[in-house]
Amino acid sequence: MKICVLGGDGYCGRATALYLSSKGHTVSIVDNFLRRQWDFEIGAQTLTPIQPLADRLRVWQELTGKSIEQFIGDVSDYDFLAGVMDAFRPDAVVHFAEQRSAPYSMIDRKHAVFTQVNNVVGTLNLLFALRETNPNCHLVKLGTMGEYGTPNIDIEEGYIRIEHNGRTDLLPFPKQPGSFYHLSKVHDSHNMMFACKIWGLRATDLNQGVVYGTVTDEVTLDEALINRFDYDDVFGTVLNRFCVQAAVGHPLTVYGTGGQTRGFLDIRDTVRCIEIACLNPAAAGECRVFNQFTEQFSVLELAELVQAAGRKMGLRVTIEHLPAPRVEAQAHYYNAKHSKLIDLGLEPHYLSDSLLDSLLNIAMRYQERIDTSLFQPQVQWRNGSNPRSRQANVAAAV
Amino acid sequence: MKICVLGGDGYCGRATALYLSSKGHTVSIVDNFLRRQWDFEIGAQTLTPIQPLADRLRVWQELTGKSIEQFIGDVSDYDFLAGVMDAFRPDAVVHFAEQRSAPYSMIDRKHAVFTQVNNVVGTLNLLFALRETNPNCHLVKLGTMGEYGTPNIDIEEGYIRIEHNGRTDLLPFPKQPGSFYHLSKVHDSHNMMFACKIWGLRATDLNQGVVYGTVTDEVTLDEALINRFDYDDVFGTVLNRFCVQAAVGHPLTVYGTGGQTRGFLDIRDTVRCIEIACLNPAAAGECRVFNQFTEQFSVLELAELVQAAGRKMGLRVTIEHLPAPRVEAQAHYYNAKHSKLIDLGLEPHYLSDSLLDSLLNIAMRYQERIDTSLFQPQVQWRNGSNPRSRQANVAAAV
Repeated sequence: MKICVLGGDGYCGRATALYLSSKGHTVSIVDNFLRRQWDFEIGAQTLTPIQPLADRLRVWQELTGKSIEQFIGDVSDYDFLAGVMDAFRPDAVVHFAEQRSAPYSMIDRKHAVFTQVNNVVGTLNLLFALRETNPNCHLVKLGTMGEYGTPNIDIEEGYIRIEHNGRTDLLPFPKQPGSFYHLSKVHDSHNMMFACKIWGLRATDLNQGVVYGTVTDEVTLDEALINRFDYDDVFGTVLNRFCVQAAVGHPLTVYGTGGQTRGFLDIRDTVRCIEIACLNPAAAGECRVFNQFTEQFSVLELAELVQAAGRKMGLRVTIEHLPAPRVEAQAHYYNAKHSKLIDLGLEPHYLSDSLLDSLLNIAMRYQERIDTSLFQPQVQWRNGSNPRSRQANVAAAV
Repeated sequence: MKICVLGGDGYCGRATALYLSSKGHTVSIVDNFLRRQWDFEIGAQTLTPIQPLADRLRVWQELTGKSIEQFIGDVSDYDFLAGVMDAFRPDAVVHFAEQRSAPYSMIDRKHAVFTQVNNVVGTLNLLFALRETNPNCHLVKLGTMGEYGTPNIDIEEGYIRIEHNGRTDLLPFPKQPGSFYHLSKVHDSHNMMFACKIWGLRATDLNQGVVYGTVTDEVTLDEALINRFDYDDVFGTVLNRFCVQAAVGHPLTVYGTGGQTRGFLDIRDTVRCIEIACLNPAAAGECRVFNQFTEQFSVLELAELVQAAGRKMGLRVTIEHLPAPRVEAQAHYYNAKHSKLIDLGLEPHYLSDSLLDSLLNIAMRYQERIDTSLFQPQVQWRNGSNPRSRQANVAAAV
């Protein structure tokens, strides 16, 4: 298939682009390198030293003989985006090209507005570009499990059959997102459902859990292909942070009680889920939703898993509870369905001792690059503006 | 109370500001006159000749001795808006200052993006401004019944108790909005719920039905106070269009079968509902939702009511069915709850023969201002771009 990966220079996007290329698909990447700019803005960098996109694609071609076309530009620039869709004419377009950090969106008003405008306008542009240039193309859009929040009922995949006062209907699952970023994804989901309905577009909304892992089969071919490993307070994810903290002997920082439970998945499953979605397109007019994760953990459970794995490697690992920076339930029911991708053939990589060993080994290997000042949460949900507001004002000024 | 009316130069806003002033509240208006600009952009004008805001407020003061302060600026300009909130320090702020036409939002991509960015950023700015300057102020925000769409179950007021797999929760009512404009209101609703939760703000989201009527007690005092009467294909509402069509002997244009059923209310009830909401503020941290309408009608029922009223006045009134420009169900279940405002004291003005006579009389009185070229729908939902796209590109370029 011809597949265009928007945001193909980011963490999930780069792994996806290489995986799809290795599977024989014709792949192109669209990116504006804003994710690299945000590293500078917040004064953090990925633990792993990543190469420029052009270098990585050159190495990929040398190693595999497969070329990946790159289109450098911004999806919020409609003329650019429509031009790419018209020129490349993909069978599927995978849309990762959004600001994806909850803390970034909560720094202050500018970052909240930037996140919502950037994400909503990018997705609107994509919907209009497909409508105009390529209405049969399948849109594979990254949403987030965070759209649902933590309701006291089972979370279904996108839609729920509701019986009420003797009548029944299948309706969009109610959304209770927990940050201005998560809200932007909810806005996208509603816009996509509507565009599919009025224009007959095909879309799959992948409500992804928290992704962990850095190594996919493709990146093991060469050091130059290595993926991001973010552990900072703004873009880092919790399992990465715990591994890096364990590597340097810093207590694992659990926010509040750590009872916050979420869906997680290995990045090797992310890339496979994307391919599965592409190979099994939605019908014309359909806006399908898959919950894309493989296991549920509470934050404290993850900390204890890292603690156990670290101790086996001879590390002294302690756990520290910090006041929770977010406004979220710390003890709650959580049972989210996630069978649709399994039904289509996903064979999950579950979080295992060997995977934790691998993550800890990466953290040990790049130990000298660890900046421990990035461990403390600096963005408090209850504040309208946080100290990072003065320090970090680049992308928000776009 | 001190009440600030954002969008106080528009149809609902001006009626609300005068009503609240007449009831003894201290009122200010914020407006940027974009609504007047849109008249020029689409080449339409209100049937009734309206005066500049400053002239209307001067007449109001001469007649009643009551002054209304005006702040001229845009709510998407944060510094301006926060300055107003800080200077005026309202007890309640009523937010009408959004692009409120579904067809306008469906003209093309630029109008869709403009509508969503304008509305979402304006409301985000207001939430942050209240957080920073006046967190105890009660936000009274205009939503729309169109957020719910037409589900096959009873529509509740904002939240619905769902029982699912043996568990239960009270969750936001699922939303199925039918235009990029209606979507913008859904985005606002989600953003507001979140801001109330994390910052303890107080908000009432008024999901208003289709408003009809031009005359409130206040505007009868002087011709200079007359309100808008929009009947064009972009900003006009269906009952106004029918009355104007009846007045000039044009068939009443029903889209499709006319089975589309919606909630409606008299503008005299709009202004009273706003006051009721202000006088009974939401609790700190509460995002309350009221469905603000008094009666349900199908479009065909309305046409038949106007036909009957017109015939009694000696007009020859026929009904014509046009292909539906929107993508919407033409026959559907519709039963929306609307008891909360009644419980707080609303005494509805139901649509009556005398009100229809009054509307028809206004249409007859200003007959020479009627532009029959504005009767035909020119924005088709199924198009990505409509002919009006070339003709109307002013506000979208903002």
